[in-house]
Amino acid sequence: MKETILNGQDLATLVQRHRSVFERAQQACRERHCWSPFPETPAQYPDSAQAQARGRAAFEAHLGRPFALAQPGLEDGPARAAEEISPYTQQPLGVTYRRADVDALFDAAEVAIGSWSKAAIEVRIAVLMEVIDVLYRDHIFEMAHAVMHTSGQSFNMSYAGSGVNALDRGIEALVHAEQAMRLVPASANWARRFGSANIELEKHYRIVPRGVAVCFACASFPTWNAWPSMMASLATGNAVILKPHPATVLPIALTVRVFRQVLAQFGFDPNLVTMALDTSAEPLGKLLVKHPKTAIVDFTGSVRFGQWVEQNAHPALCFTETAGCNTVVIDAVDDLDAVLRSLATTLCMFSAQMCTSPQNIYISRHGVRTPQGVVGFDEVARRLADAVGAIAQDGKKASMILAAIASPQTLALLAQLQEEGARRGELLLVPGAYAHPEFAEARTRTPLMVKLDKRDRDLYGEERFGPVSFVIACDDADDALRQATTDVREFGGLTAFLYATDEAFIARAVDAYARAGAQLTINLTGPMPLNFAAAYSDYHVTGLNPAGNASLTDMAFVAGRFCITQSRRPARSPAPTR
Amino acid sequence: MKETILNGQDLATLVQRHRSVFERAQQACRERHCWSPFPETPAQYPDSAQAQARGRAAFEAHLGRPFALAQPGLEDGPARAAEEISPYTQQPLGVTYRRADVDALFDAAEVAIGSWSKAAIEVRIAVLMEVIDVLYRDHIFEMAHAVMHTSGQSFNMSYAGSGVNALDRGIEALVHAEQAMRLVPASANWARRFGSANIELEKHYRIVPRGVAVCFACASFPTWNAWPSMMASLATGNAVILKPHPATVLPIALTVRVFRQVLAQFGFDPNLVTMALDTSAEPLGKLLVKHPKTAIVDFTGSVRFGQWVEQNAHPALCFTETAGCNTVVIDAVDDLDAVLRSLATTLCMFSAQMCTSPQNIYISRHGVRTPQGVVGFDEVARRLADAVGAIAQDGKKASMILAAIASPQTLALLAQLQEEGARRGELLLVPGAYAHPEFAEARTRTPLMVKLDKRDRDLYGEERFGPVSFVIACDDADDALRQATTDVREFGGLTAFLYATDEAFIARAVDAYARAGAQLTINLTGPMPLNFAAAYSDYHVTGLNPAGNASLTDMAFVAGRFCITQSRRPARSPAPTR
Repeated sequence: MKETILNGQDLATLVQRHRSVFERAQQACRERHCWSPFPETPAQYPDSAQAQARGRAAFEAHLGRPFALAQPGLEDGPARAAEEISPYTQQPLGVTYRRADVDALFDAAEVAIGSWSKAAIEVRIAVLMEVIDVLYRDHIFEMAHAVMHTSGQSFNMSYAGSGVNALDRGIEALVHAEQAMRLVPASANWARRFGSANIELEKHYRIVPRGVAVCFACASFPTWNAWPSMMASLATGNAVILKPHPATVLPIALTVRVFRQVLAQFGFDPNLVTMALDTSAEPLGKLLVKHPKTAIVDFTGSVRFGQWVEQNAHPALCFTETAGCNTVVIDAVDDLDAVLRSLATTLCMFSAQMCTSPQNIYISRHGVRTPQGVVGFDEVARRLADAVGAIAQDGKKASMILAAIASPQTLALLAQLQEEGARRGELLLVPGAYAHPEFAEARTRTPLMVKLDKRDRDLYGEERFGPVSFVIACDDADDALRQATTDVREFGGLTAFLYATDEAFIARAVDAYARAGAQLTINLTGPMPLNFAAAYSDYHVTGLNPAGNASLTDMAFVAGRFCITQSRRPARSPAPTR
Repeated sequence: MKETILNGQDLATLVQRHRSVFERAQQACRERHCWSPFPETPAQYPDSAQAQARGRAAFEAHLGRPFALAQPGLEDGPARAAEEISPYTQQPLGVTYRRADVDALFDAAEVAIGSWSKAAIEVRIAVLMEVIDVLYRDHIFEMAHAVMHTSGQSFNMSYAGSGVNALDRGIEALVHAEQAMRLVPASANWARRFGSANIELEKHYRIVPRGVAVCFACASFPTWNAWPSMMASLATGNAVILKPHPATVLPIALTVRVFRQVLAQFGFDPNLVTMALDTSAEPLGKLLVKHPKTAIVDFTGSVRFGQWVEQNAHPALCFTETAGCNTVVIDAVDDLDAVLRSLATTLCMFSAQMCTSPQNIYISRHGVRTPQGVVGFDEVARRLADAVGAIAQDGKKASMILAAIASPQTLALLAQLQEEGARRGELLLVPGAYAHPEFAEARTRTPLMVKLDKRDRDLYGEERFGPVSFVIACDDADDALRQATTDVREFGGLTAFLYATDEAFIARAVDAYARAGAQLTINLTGPMPLNFAAAYSDYHVTGLNPAGNASLTDMAFVAGRFCITQSRRPARSPAPTR
């Protein structure tokens, strides 16, 4: 790793190079329209075929080999494999990593903060924009394969959702962090009479980082949450220790290496970004959260551990995204087939292993109103299951949409829920493996769909991670809305979906979901996945229900990551009296 | 209480009426210069003599009488006296209050949030600016007497520090809350191609309050922290339940009544602001913090309970100001007498019963450098004690500066520290009562000053609330700085004071105090109290040490008090494609 101390001229050039994209991003954040500096699909990437081949080769070169990361406090002895098994080949990746002593990482991070936190805001922003550039330019396809073969995402989703969209959310975090810091002036002149004397003070204000941030990356979407959290912490002057899920280390290891390279290249201490590895048998999470030097915790992961983190993070600041019951309410539609097609695709997307995937579908037991008359509850449930089944039965479509199952635990959960569902309600769709056209050994499962009554709340009233959904019979549309929003408030929820034609009902639903704190999509059909969250435009977790508080991104996501200190002294040149 | 539902015209007039002052306050917050819409001293108040007489009469009319506050869930039976005893007369105020059922207050607050949170931002701001106006216009002297006769502040400090300066901090909180909310646009148009289809969405964003805030007001400065916290919570759409210290109820009861009157006058539910009373024997604090409907906690008070609040507030958001060791480092001075005069006044100000009062004075055991040569440690300590003693011996000056002692516990602490100080170090000044020229029965005590070695950290290494200071012998100036900033980091600290002439040493001190998180005043002499914190200009608690995190005010103080929800649906009119 080259470490070049650059002079002010080089940093000025860097700032200049990133200015126009950053200013465009600021505009997008203000207006919240659709924008990205990146092409949306792999095919649109410059010189795509060659770039994709290089990325694949770079990924394959990692397999079965030690991953070099020159961190402080590296343990002696050979590097050890993580718990990474490709959901596509069901073979271990065999990438080996050397662990680093946690105290050594914290100590090094604290040292690294010194010069970084004193750099001008625009320098920190420009260096981090350069990280974005390097990730995109040199690593996006390598990263896509790394995400694909750890999380089980399709290649296209790995590129888009875990690649360019995650980079966009990173830029967005930089915009908000910069905005929060710019609200604090560097200095002020202050003058007031006290009795017969005029006191004139010059005051200097300083952005002081909170300290060392610990960022937990989740197994299913390692980059999408980690990148904006990292950017928010680093932009405001902090250091970050990444804690990958032991089954999804490579995307985070690549991330850490790129951050370290770029930081060092511009004369900053690479120990601003390090990685703490653990295993399922010996997890480090609690130790990291309770470490006396931990100042910020960003957590994405399970509800169970997330609740422990929220309750125990103090005195560290804590941002979380755990999980929830994402809900659908269907009252009335203009085109039932279009609605069911959109819902089916969204239910299937990455086998519902997304924090935004819908799970619970609440419908009046009297059915759904359409221009052709009321369609009965059972028929709606049946036709929705058929639409999901049609995706599951088409191997090529399934491979693009369902992709693979990240964890064997999900298969066990499906089996258990199938048994319970058959006993308590009616199985609309029974899960089974589908044949992946490219990876014969892929861990796949088509969705489980269960028809239930609203009484069966113990079964549907929590997130069931994986391709599971429940069609729930309610007394009427208002009951469906009340039930759905009550469940969101109690069990958490990030997204919600409504189909209705009565504007008064829609207005009530908008109010109810705003109180419950789930982001609502109304009457959407067509090719956009219903749960697509657009960077620069869509707010994420609201903080109003148990699903967490990491809004990615707003002022609350960035403003607490730094503190403001001041010094004041008699003015050396007189200040104007006001 | 009149409850008038006003029409839009009236609210528009209200918004218009407060616009210019609010815009001027926005400018002050941006530029952080000296400004206030209020005159600084009682004498400058319009028609001062009559206003003061009316205020005094209004205060006296409360004494020995029930205080009417038409809250929900009022207990049956007669009103009961709080634990209010004037430090000036040592007689009970005898104001009686009816307690309200806590659950009834939370339920009513939740209901009240509904229409308040839906009001336009500028309407909420204008209504709260009107509250500021009414407090100033109709109650400022009544409030000053109420603060004086519960906390023991001098009349002038009650007017300035607990009156107009507290109102300024309230306006400042409104400015920051408005700014944070304005960063969220009300709506956006968003359009993107997915495959061959153009998806056009209209998105609506909503500011959603977090819920019910609980605000603990402290005994010594009930309004200065409570008003900005209340304004920050209310501006962002929340309700507030105030919990006064049982010995300082009247200023909070007056506050609650004014908020309720103005809210009702403009058609909003007065239950947005209520008061929960408790007693020392049966405190309500833990119940309020852990109440399932508590969404925000603002706490000002003791370190001990403050730490419990910080650790137990989750899932509520928590802002605290507790206490710390405010430090002074003296290395070198241009005019030793001027420095000692300023320090002495500040050590005496309200008998050091302020969160910003200095306590620990670190000096090299080799003395302080002056243009006339080095003045030995013992001589500096002696001359500082003499300067403090001169204030204490002058009854009129003492009554203006030392004022009265709020709590009998402080007298016990002084006695204990005098005994320990004599045993461990050397007593520089021994406390005693001074004769208050106006109130013969006033509870007064002149300051205790103790000379110690830096080894005696167990004695000086925590806040000793009251007129106590320690002059601490260190090895040299760098050691003094290291010792002082280490103590701030470990035990907390809000303010710090430095006297030095070497700019390199000053720069090191600025860095060290920025890391420790205390707001530093350098080389200040003259009539301004060294610990004077100017609204619109000085940041308060930094969040970097155990003294708390309530910056009063910045984005971090306001941005988490509301959440952002959104709804999106196919655009009814096509959005431009970008």
